[in-house]
Amino acid sequence: MDYQSILERIAQDVAPLVGSGTPAEYIPALAAVDARHFGMAIADLDGKVHGVGDWERPFSTQSVTKVFALALALSLGGDGLWERVGREPSGNPFNSLVQLEYENGIPRNPFINAGALVVTDRLLTLTGDASSELLEFLRQESGNPELAFDPEVAESESGHGDRNAALAHFMASYGNIANPVPALLDHYFWQCSIEMSCGDLARAARFLARHGLRADGSRLLTRSEAKQVNAVMLTCGTYDAAGEFAYRVGLPGKSGVGGGIVAVVPGRCTLCVWSPGLDGQGNSVAGVAALDRFTTLTGLSVF
Amino acid sequence: MDYQSILERIAQDVAPLVGSGTPAEYIPALAAVDARHFGMAIADLDGKVHGVGDWERPFSTQSVTKVFALALALSLGGDGLWERVGREPSGNPFNSLVQLEYENGIPRNPFINAGALVVTDRLLTLTGDASSELLEFLRQESGNPELAFDPEVAESESGHGDRNAALAHFMASYGNIANPVPALLDHYFWQCSIEMSCGDLARAARFLARHGLRADGSRLLTRSEAKQVNAVMLTCGTYDAAGEFAYRVGLPGKSGVGGGIVAVVPGRCTLCVWSPGLDGQGNSVAGVAALDRFTTLTGLSVF
Amino acid sequence: MDYQSILERIAQDVAPLVGSGTPAEYIPALAAVDARHFGMAIADLDGKVHGVGDWERPFSTQSVTKVFALALALSLGGDGLWERVGREPSGNPFNSLVQLEYENGIPRNPFINAGALVVTDRLLTLTGDASSELLEFLRQESGNPELAFDPEVAESESGHGDRNAALAHFMASYGNIANPVPALLDHYFWQCSIEMSCGDLARAARFLARHGLRADGSRLLTRSEAKQVNAVMLTCGTYDAAGEFAYRVGLPGKSGVGGGIVAVVPGRCTLCVWSPGLDGQGNSVAGVAALDRFTTLTGLSVF
Amino acid sequence: MDYQSILERIAQDVAPLVGSGTPAEYIPALAAVDARHFGMAIADLDGKVHGVGDWERPFSTQSVTKVFALALALSLGGDGLWERVGREPSGNPFNSLVQLEYENGIPRNPFINAGALVVTDRLLTLTGDASSELLEFLRQESGNPELAFDPEVAESESGHGDRNAALAHFMASYGNIANPVPALLDHYFWQCSIEMSCGDLARAARFLARHGLRADGSRLLTRSEAKQVNAVMLTCGTYDAAGEFAYRVGLPGKSGVGGGIVAVVPGRCTLCVWSPGLDGQGNSVAGVAALDRFTTLTGLSVF
Repeated sequence: MDYQSILERIAQDVAPLVGSGTPAEYIPALAAVDARHFGMAIADLDGKVHGVGDWERPFSTQSVTKVFALALALSLGGDGLWERVGREPSGNPFNSLVQLEYENGIPRNPFINAGALVVTDRLLTLTGDASSELLEFLRQESGNPELAFDPEVAESESGHGDRNAALAHFMASYGNIANPVPALLDHYFWQCSIEMSCGDLARAARFLARHGLRADGSRLLTRSEAKQVNAVMLTCGTYDAAGEFAYRVGLPGKSGVGGGIVAVVPGRCTLCVWSPGLDGQGNSVAGVAALDRFTTLTGLSVF
Repeated sequence: MDYQSILERIAQDVAPLVGSGTPAEYIPALAAVDARHFGMAIADLDGKVHGVGDWERPFSTQSVTKVFALALALSLGGDGLWERVGREPSGNPFNSLVQLEYENGIPRNPFINAGALVVTDRLLTLTGDASSELLEFLRQESGNPELAFDPEVAESESGHGDRNAALAHFMASYGNIANPVPALLDHYFWQCSIEMSCGDLARAARFLARHGLRADGSRLLTRSEAKQVNAVMLTCGTYDAAGEFAYRVGLPGKSGVGGGIVAVVPGRCTLCVWSPGLDGQGNSVAGVAALDRFTTLTGLSVF
Repeated sequence: MDYQSILERIAQDVAPLVGSGTPAEYIPALAAVDARHFGMAIADLDGKVHGVGDWERPFSTQSVTKVFALALALSLGGDGLWERVGREPSGNPFNSLVQLEYENGIPRNPFINAGALVVTDRLLTLTGDASSELLEFLRQESGNPELAFDPEVAESESGHGDRNAALAHFMASYGNIANPVPALLDHYFWQCSIEMSCGDLARAARFLARHGLRADGSRLLTRSEAKQVNAVMLTCGTYDAAGEFAYRVGLPGKSGVGGGIVAVVPGRCTLCVWSPGLDGQGNSVAGVAALDRFTTLTGLSVF
Repeated sequence: MDYQSILERIAQDVAPLVGSGTPAEYIPALAAVDARHFGMAIADLDGKVHGVGDWERPFSTQSVTKVFALALALSLGGDGLWERVGREPSGNPFNSLVQLEYENGIPRNPFINAGALVVTDRLLTLTGDASSELLEFLRQESGNPELAFDPEVAESESGHGDRNAALAHFMASYGNIANPVPALLDHYFWQCSIEMSCGDLARAARFLARHGLRADGSRLLTRSEAKQVNAVMLTCGTYDAAGEFAYRVGLPGKSGVGGGIVAVVPGRCTLCVWSPGLDGQGNSVAGVAALDRFTTLTGLSVF
């Protein structure tokens, strides 16, 4: 089966699930999204993109941007980052503060909020303007110069930002934040507010399937670094459901509470699926099911 | 490079690390082993085995047997097992009791001690003699009819078994243990005491690289189940260092405090490495380094 | 007002609460008790006892015996006990295993189950027969030679004893249990099964109001030790509600899931109240209210 | 023995301990204090004060002010406060964030930092100027109109305030902080910076020994509220050593990292002791020993 047929088959198969689950409710801008959207895209290594459903419609990327921020921070600053953030799954269904305290302000991995704050803090130190640099990088890799922040989402996040402020101050108390907390939080909230479509994200993530090579053929990450980012995605990319995601889907993936999930088949292709209804772990119900169908239909899991 | 040359190159590269780390000390039988052993074997899908160093010398498999017990329990009893044990990394450097209590007696995954006790409990219910059935299975898959328990190790484990007894009684208080605790513990300790060589283990694990097919060509697990066991190995197979192992090695793997590690390249081959010196997380220092070298030299990581 | 009038006034005041709450349900022998019982007794320093309601009816003392076991262990073995158990409130609404693990097998205080197991373990080492020695001690102090174990309760506890077995094995894994776990558990369960009335308990506890002097005038504890036991009762005697109990009642007290509570007014008198309906923390609803009324009516709180 | 002779005897007895322990080091202003200071004062119910050593020398009150803030908040706002903060010991040697998360942003008691922030937040809402109101109250009760903030300490606290900022934002994320976090933190840090002598504090605390009556004879707290504040001091007033303090001293007490401790003998007198060397729990080494000697010499413990 070609990719386009596979996508259409998947869309048909998961249709009954589209609309189940609940969109993120902690900020009005996300809660207002219609849960019945579904889109999916596949990008091959040459950049050819296939899509189905709402695959060209922009949505709020939220935590999906964390994997791009990580790659950019590693590319610009090297692996010194790993002295400030771990690479182990958080394994804790109810919080991250416990482990943060237990491990003296070093977050378990770069994809929990605390760890992502450290990555943004490093990017801010390296570039002077973390959120703009990330946006520019995503524009280049997706080939879409119109990607933009959503100011309403960024401000809404900021207005509900006490928990992230707590995490940042707490790490600062251990000396693990280099920039002023308010500035860091701004960059973090703007980074989360970037809007992209499934097509944009599948294209932008190709460097992870191409062992580190960017869209223009230049090298973003070494082969070894690209392997490492994929490994961290597999073990930590879907909140406390990483084990379950690896079990069902068997691909490196990174999800966001906007309902998007990016996944990588190393050496073959990248995928992005979007549907706003979330399960109890914050992952898209129809999105996880669609990726599950993909690996079952194609046998393209890493295992 | 052919497998034999690769093994010899690896042995050379990791030689400086052999002897570093500390053999497990909690029972005399393990503490007495010479830390300077090193062996490694690769089995291809047809059962051809290549080896280097002490690859034919039997050692105490310990937790490496947990992956075989899991496969056998799934094969005999199906996925009802997953109602009694989770599939998420434990993510907790210091204990498992906390999470066991928080999650009402359901262990996070089948490879932490609590979860392995549940697997053995299920195997005991399914077969009436969990440890003997497991030994017989390992004899068949390895093609080595002389595999045996080490009674000294089993008794030594039993004499230091209060922590496992605590875990079993604790789960029993939640109704998650079906057999009498003392009988369960016996089977658990005997299972841990099985002695095998790198060659035996690499051969025995081939069903995980062959998508579920046993040595005799019959099916142990469905393709999907084999994928799932590999996924659980990758996310949970090396104690609290699973993220680090995925990051460095990028293969499903299961380690034991005897110093052995089994790893799987799905669709290609299986590996087993042994060296008794352990790092702080309980994984073989030279063993992890050897597997790291293997994926770097061959590019055969799953990522 | 004299004690008798006070008791009658209290009985009247708390009557609307008698029968609310829920008797302990984890063993049938306790669940079968009628929640509508209420009794209360006051013993002055000379041993004169006043009572109201079911004050002469025996009930299952359960954890109330822990304070007598502690006093006996201190009297017989001295303060070496404090090397094996702490004196801090447990402060944890949901478990004790977490702290037990965090503090390397040393329970927070002698009144949580883990700590009481250590006290019984010590008493067993000191006397060879912990539960019989405790029973004999209670007979002497209460002046009631007919006090007895309730075998049905003891066996019922034993049949539901997995959690206590887990605690004991867990502490044994840290070297903090000296006797074989099954023998220790037997003594612990028999100790909990002793039946006494409010009158018996008020009399038996008088040594705590008499700064350490026993019923026969001999010294059980030094003045300083008696103060210390009272202090531990106040800070740790009512499970996770010790702060609330101190706040409302303001007296050292020890409760049990049988619905009994013993309280001490140092230098003045002892009280015992019983009513089987428990609140969410395992303390008698009407019992706590009755003690609250007592200190309000008499001003006899320690604060 | 009269109070003056007792104080002199105590000063002699604890002299060998003065200078041991370590002054608080987290801010320079505290770390610079000479550890060899020792002062102690007793105030009787009429306001007559006896003192020994450096009893008239002002020191940084720090957390000792928390008990006065609590009393003032209860007096002005009533017991609605208890919906936002608990009354149970924290029982956790290593942190408060764990329990704060577990209990949804409700601190365990008003004397851990999180709870004291809630009290200050309430005082700020009630008065519009929490720190000035508290200072004025302390001036009136101590009879010393020259009491003042130490701006150097307040600013130093603010400069090291990330952990308190984390606590405040974290509670704000649960809706348990009513004022803007930066304003709240300012009042909190200024409150901690108030300088007082042992004599000032012993005088100011008399309302707790006088069952709620202020220095001018007016009522601050009801008799019942005064009892309750004393109870909370006893169970929660000395960090994670409250059990130990009750065990050794047997009096309600509140300590601060400046080395001061206030203690109350209800119906009799108040005490304040100061010596900057702290033990591992943050309580004054010589201070605790002095109070221990006091209750041993006088028999005036509450137990």
